[in-house]
Amino acid sequence: MKLQGSIQINEVGLRDGLQLEDRILSVEQKIKLVDALIDANVKTIEFGSFVHPKLVPQMKNSRELYELISEKHQDVDFIALIPNLKGVILAAEVGVQRVNTVLSASNTHNLQNVRKTKRQSLEEFLRIKEYCEEKEILLDCSIATTFGCPFEGDIHEEVIFSIIESVIQAGVNVITLADTTGMANPKQVYDLSKNVLEKWPNQPFNLHFHNTRGMGLANVLGGIQAGISSFDASLGGLGGCPFAPGATGNICTEDVVHMLEEMQLKTDISLDNLLEASKMLRSILDHELPGQILKSGKSSRLYPVPAI
Amino acid sequence: MKLQGSIQINEVGLRDGLQLEDRILSVEQKIKLVDALIDANVKTIEFGSFVHPKLVPQMKNSRELYELISEKHQDVDFIALIPNLKGVILAAEVGVQRVNTVLSASNTHNLQNVRKTKRQSLEEFLRIKEYCEEKEILLDCSIATTFGCPFEGDIHEEVIFSIIESVIQAGVNVITLADTTGMANPKQVYDLSKNVLEKWPNQPFNLHFHNTRGMGLANVLGGIQAGISSFDASLGGLGGCPFAPGATGNICTEDVVHMLEEMQLKTDISLDNLLEASKMLRSILDHELPGQILKSGKSSRLYPVPAI
Repeated sequence: MKLQGSIQINEVGLRDGLQLEDRILSVEQKIKLVDALIDANVKTIEFGSFVHPKLVPQMKNSRELYELISEKHQDVDFIALIPNLKGVILAAEVGVQRVNTVLSASNTHNLQNVRKTKRQSLEEFLRIKEYCEEKEILLDCSIATTFGCPFEGDIHEEVIFSIIESVIQAGVNVITLADTTGMANPKQVYDLSKNVLEKWPNQPFNLHFHNTRGMGLANVLGGIQAGISSFDASLGGLGGCPFAPGATGNICTEDVVHMLEEMQLKTDISLDNLLEASKMLRSILDHELPGQILKSGKSSRLYPVPAI
Repeated sequence: MKLQGSIQINEVGLRDGLQLEDRILSVEQKIKLVDALIDANVKTIEFGSFVHPKLVPQMKNSRELYELISEKHQDVDFIALIPNLKGVILAAEVGVQRVNTVLSASNTHNLQNVRKTKRQSLEEFLRIKEYCEEKEILLDCSIATTFGCPFEGDIHEEVIFSIIESVIQAGVNVITLADTTGMANPKQVYDLSKNVLEKWPNQPFNLHFHNTRGMGLANVLGGIQAGISSFDASLGGLGGCPFAPGATGNICTEDVVHMLEEMQLKTDISLDNLLEASKMLRSILDHELPGQILKSGKSSRLYPVPAI
């Protein structure tokens, strides 16, 4: 198996990971986590979202958080999730320089998620793009339910291609193909990624997986084999799925980094420091996290030989 | 990603899965589980082991269990794990027709596991083989710690090759390359499997993984890509690791079958019935199991669209 090069990891625990947690973290707690992630040399962090505070209370302090972390860590890419133009205007007010907006490949999911049809969302994307250009803000786009929709099921490849083409035409930084509810399988990930990279060889693509059905790391492998070198992951595997109580969450940052290291792929991240950050998260939330390496230790961990 | 053909699944939950459980299952409970597995069309079941009952109390009723299930299900391959000649003699007494013995690639692990050096274990293998030939018992061999030893670390490929060569020379049915404590990564699995299949194209090989570090299904994918078509798995992902409290166990049968189905690979197993068997196991053990599909449902499970 020929794998080489270096893989980019985008930490999304503070946004996608935390948003389903009951315990609302203070700005101070979030800053501690950001500091710990940066100690582990994580360079891209989705730190929060600019949505209505009633919808996602956990994200209410995103504004204050950004002001403090952006001042402290000027060499880190802090990304805000924004669902609409209003969100990016709020983000711009505090000087956010990179935002990620979301469109669903499934019309039903898009309506549920942002109360817009796909056509309306694409129109909103154009307005967001125009605004971002004016303010010199980098605009990423996540395509939710790319690998399947919990309401509609399979999404035809042509539907994904058409959305990708639209956002590339409008102008976009990174496109994330997101497996929003953990329906992807590694063959599907490989095949779609391969086709997308062949069609748009100059467009940066990122993949976003949940480990809902245990295939999270297998999907990362499928993506890497197809030539993708950028992945979202969540510290401790925090996340979960609103449809599947008890199911695991986003793929776990430290588990991904561990697998990549074991396969001799570079990430620039310090796994030991990442594990410290994950311990801190577990202690702040006061419950176990789905990630495995925090429990098992690394593959390279050796044990003393018991006397026989 | 070109994947095709059909994959053989060997259920090891009743042996490797149960052996670390505190709650000792009665013969009746085990029979119920075997019946449920067979309802799901599982055709190869490692049902127990013939070891000293003080060492593994859970396996104490293996003899009685075999007598009842072998009579009831004559078209199923029931395999007994046997650590030594004494074990196979006990198994033969009740008419067991297929046994699996274990050798460790790591000398330290072999001493810990069966109180023998590797050389002594290979000598024992020859005695077991001779006995099995005389009794017309099929003899499989699992090579423990193939992908790493928790005491010695990496195991050189040449060491694995030499053990494989020795057991093939002696005469063996299926060889299992076992990742005893979940140290394998998919690149390593692919590379070793590829090399082994090239060296011994006519020898049946099987892979045994634990999901200790979250890479279980990724490792299955690596094995399949290399051309392996037979895997051990444990209902509900039961198992665990004596070295890593809280770590997940063997790869989960229903999660593996689900991934294979999603990738259009055949197994002949009914996933729905397998999930019923896993529910039964959870209810008998009265605790949650590490498997994901039992919690999340299949990827194909659709949800009613909520009113907006």
